[in-house]
Amino acid sequence: MTGAKNSGAKIPGAEILVRTLVANGVDTCFANPGTSELHALAAFDSMPGARCVPTLFEGVATGAADGYARMTDRPAATLLHLGPGLANGLANLHNARRACVPMVNIVGDHATWHRGVDAPLTSDVEGLAKPMSAWVRTVPDAASVAADTAEAIRAALTPPCGVSTLILPSDSSWDDTAAAEPIIVEPPAPAAPDADALRAAADALRSGERVVVLLNGRATRTEGLALAGRIAAATGAKLYAHTGATRIERGAGRVTVERFPYPIDLGIAALAGAKHVVLIGSGEPVGFFGYPDKPSRLAPEDCRIHTVAPPGADALAALRWLAEAVGCAGTPVPAQPLAPPEPATGALTADSVGQSLAALLPEGAIVVDEGISSSPMVYTACAGARAHDWLTITGGAIGIGMPLALGAAIACPDRKVVTVQADGSGMYTLQALWSQARERADVVTIIFANRRYGILQWELGNLGFRDMGPNARNCTELGRPDLDWVALARGMGVEGGQATDAESFNRLLTAAFARKGPFLIEAVI
Amino acid sequence: MTGAKNSGAKIPGAEILVRTLVANGVDTCFANPGTSELHALAAFDSMPGARCVPTLFEGVATGAADGYARMTDRPAATLLHLGPGLANGLANLHNARRACVPMVNIVGDHATWHRGVDAPLTSDVEGLAKPMSAWVRTVPDAASVAADTAEAIRAALTPPCGVSTLILPSDSSWDDTAAAEPIIVEPPAPAAPDADALRAAADALRSGERVVVLLNGRATRTEGLALAGRIAAATGAKLYAHTGATRIERGAGRVTVERFPYPIDLGIAALAGAKHVVLIGSGEPVGFFGYPDKPSRLAPEDCRIHTVAPPGADALAALRWLAEAVGCAGTPVPAQPLAPPEPATGALTADSVGQSLAALLPEGAIVVDEGISSSPMVYTACAGARAHDWLTITGGAIGIGMPLALGAAIACPDRKVVTVQADGSGMYTLQALWSQARERADVVTIIFANRRYGILQWELGNLGFRDMGPNARNCTELGRPDLDWVALARGMGVEGGQATDAESFNRLLTAAFARKGPFLIEAVI
Repeated sequence: MTGAKNSGAKIPGAEILVRTLVANGVDTCFANPGTSELHALAAFDSMPGARCVPTLFEGVATGAADGYARMTDRPAATLLHLGPGLANGLANLHNARRACVPMVNIVGDHATWHRGVDAPLTSDVEGLAKPMSAWVRTVPDAASVAADTAEAIRAALTPPCGVSTLILPSDSSWDDTAAAEPIIVEPPAPAAPDADALRAAADALRSGERVVVLLNGRATRTEGLALAGRIAAATGAKLYAHTGATRIERGAGRVTVERFPYPIDLGIAALAGAKHVVLIGSGEPVGFFGYPDKPSRLAPEDCRIHTVAPPGADALAALRWLAEAVGCAGTPVPAQPLAPPEPATGALTADSVGQSLAALLPEGAIVVDEGISSSPMVYTACAGARAHDWLTITGGAIGIGMPLALGAAIACPDRKVVTVQADGSGMYTLQALWSQARERADVVTIIFANRRYGILQWELGNLGFRDMGPNARNCTELGRPDLDWVALARGMGVEGGQATDAESFNRLLTAAFARKGPFLIEAVI
Repeated sequence: MTGAKNSGAKIPGAEILVRTLVANGVDTCFANPGTSELHALAAFDSMPGARCVPTLFEGVATGAADGYARMTDRPAATLLHLGPGLANGLANLHNARRACVPMVNIVGDHATWHRGVDAPLTSDVEGLAKPMSAWVRTVPDAASVAADTAEAIRAALTPPCGVSTLILPSDSSWDDTAAAEPIIVEPPAPAAPDADALRAAADALRSGERVVVLLNGRATRTEGLALAGRIAAATGAKLYAHTGATRIERGAGRVTVERFPYPIDLGIAALAGAKHVVLIGSGEPVGFFGYPDKPSRLAPEDCRIHTVAPPGADALAALRWLAEAVGCAGTPVPAQPLAPPEPATGALTADSVGQSLAALLPEGAIVVDEGISSSPMVYTACAGARAHDWLTITGGAIGIGMPLALGAAIACPDRKVVTVQADGSGMYTLQALWSQARERADVVTIIFANRRYGILQWELGNLGFRDMGPNARNCTELGRPDLDWVALARGMGVEGGQATDAESFNRLLTAAFARKGPFLIEAVI
């Protein structure tokens, strides 16, 4: 693309933005630009190897950048349009913040000299960004683009990693600058584990008292789980992954770990009798929501919390030290044997979908789980499947599933991605299907079509409500009319089919796994 | 619905919330609740006449509340889930803020005693709300619900009207309170116009110099336009409605007014030679965006700006005073004669869609215009159509069209609503179609399927970019694959058809106008 403003040795700020990104390995941008970002967009065409993935809604862009980062441990960029465009991306930035993934979230703004006239699209972009960002800066001028972009990347990669929001006024994009040399970033290493907490945790693990170990971050990857599995095998400790763990490597050859339960009563029960909770890459166990007459902190009052490696500290170092300290050098890794079930037959339920998925899941698949009320059954069923990665909703902001799958597929084009998607949550960011079609992303989307916000109906019961009135029914049922997900997918260029029993589901899933590219299965459960 | 916590003379905070809303005429709630809002949701079933309209995405709820307010001049409520749910609604709150419409935006939050444990869905809700709200308050406890809800309503209705965000921690909902008497609100009247500015504007109008009058708010309704039209006829002043006017009453019997042009060069040309700009219900004319080497303020340097009635002041009083002052008592209202064209024939274009719509538009229709690059042609074509209201995108945050239409249809069930919808913008909040189907909203949606972000391709040219590279092309073209809007509509239970020439468009539009309920026409232009 030929810019209107490019002369001599100086280059426009937008070009040094893209040069700096690419020089630091940030070569993929999930984009939904508007007028104020057109110079930045054009600059992506000035730099070989820089790729913009178009999205039709900003929540798709931010969710995809999260998925990309979970699978590569590197940031993607986004390109969003002013305050409202950022706002549309915030819910999935919230999830990314909870996932502790790196992201360079680039938001255009009006030219600095245009802000004062309060044009229709003017808003407080920094104010909107702060709640969901680890780092926020407005670039003051073109001369600052190189340094500020480098700082954004550095902040995003600083453990525990996070969302850097770089606000780029359009004159910073189009003005020329001589500060045109990209700065290469050296992000800091993770902090060392807490030595006192490690010693106390080792004592606890050797004490014979009940110990629960809660894992997230690097601790739920293959190496971390192997260490944790040996520690648990040697000491009798109980392992859980965080309810919203960022990425769990599981299936055959890995150490199987339960996720800490979402329902508050099950969470309290999971910790009953525990004298110690050891946190490795995770925060302490708390209620997902507050409930009348239930606690916020779920561990018993007499239970000690050992924060050996909070998010941002070196979880693997902590696990290695603990494995050494508890003397489990000779303990073998309790690896999961390959044990895929037969595909299910008969009625289609969350359980039978899980069984068939476990049977047919290809080696190295990435499962993206926004199954919500159907999620636990599928997670459990897939324990003995071929080796796979499991990505889930980290921050509770629904509408992450299909965007996350898009980003994972862009990050790992040689791996099959499977989205386990609740119908209600799926409607928040269904536009992701179009980007999957445009990019020929290798994603199979399984919609759990239970025609309701199942989790809300469950929570109504949990809260003691007995009979639903018309308003409560209207707001928790998804029927009248039913959503037709096969039509929705076709509307965005994604082929699909509806399954109403296990046999038709198995046929569709087998066909979807045998081909490349996006496909959607509406599983009516 | 039977609550778990209701005993004696005290009632739960959630019930006094709904009682206060309904007692003040806020009986309609566009809702997308989650767990932390279930007590509030249930309370809507405790109050006869309170109605929750379910939405599948929060931007639909906030956009619909805007449409409802534009047609009733009363606030609707929303019910949104925590920070991420609010975030999803912010883009259309931005538009509502620019529209100066009243809204009671209710956002649930964690129980006050649960916030400190940083549960996954915890975020800075007030921080997110402030940029897009005129008033924000977190209810501290159940005893404060009655007063805080009343204050939210009062703030929303205080001229120039705005978005009140009432943050409701779930313990404020479920705890019982004796403060159970609803408070009735008396909102203040609009401020009087500025007397000095009025006198100066009257002098300007009588001076023979070129005067441009920019109108918004009450000034673009029937009575205001009649006054403005007589003033213009008597003095030669040029009238414009604001580019993003909140609601324009137009068509046969009303005074036709152009909208101030969006393209910056046309805006500058519209003010060329003007010695005075008179603002009635509108801010001053500024560039929608800043552009290199173009001004922010569009009026000539020697032009005086007369702010006789800023948003929030009494625009009708200003117009009456000016009409008197310029002595146009005998000037007749230059009312638009009924002059619908014949339906178009031949190729389908934005112009021919506009012509056919003007020909067939039923009396009293509400046209919701998010046509973006196709909007000016349709607006112009409909000038001589039967009397209708025109609602458009006020703040430039795309994704308002179909939600706005939902709200207008709920507000005015006896009037036909027509959405003129660009395809790119429509994808942001397409979930509105499902709510239209659920509510049997009488809305005809016309999708301008030009398969591109036409406005961005135009702006690229405007900014001097000549050849698009692959990234710019990928991010401004909507094809590969084409969206199939008829399938998308069917997926959400809305019937539709595709038109590829004027004749097929006319047939579909005639059929759609002859029936009640939602229908979608994909106009391939």
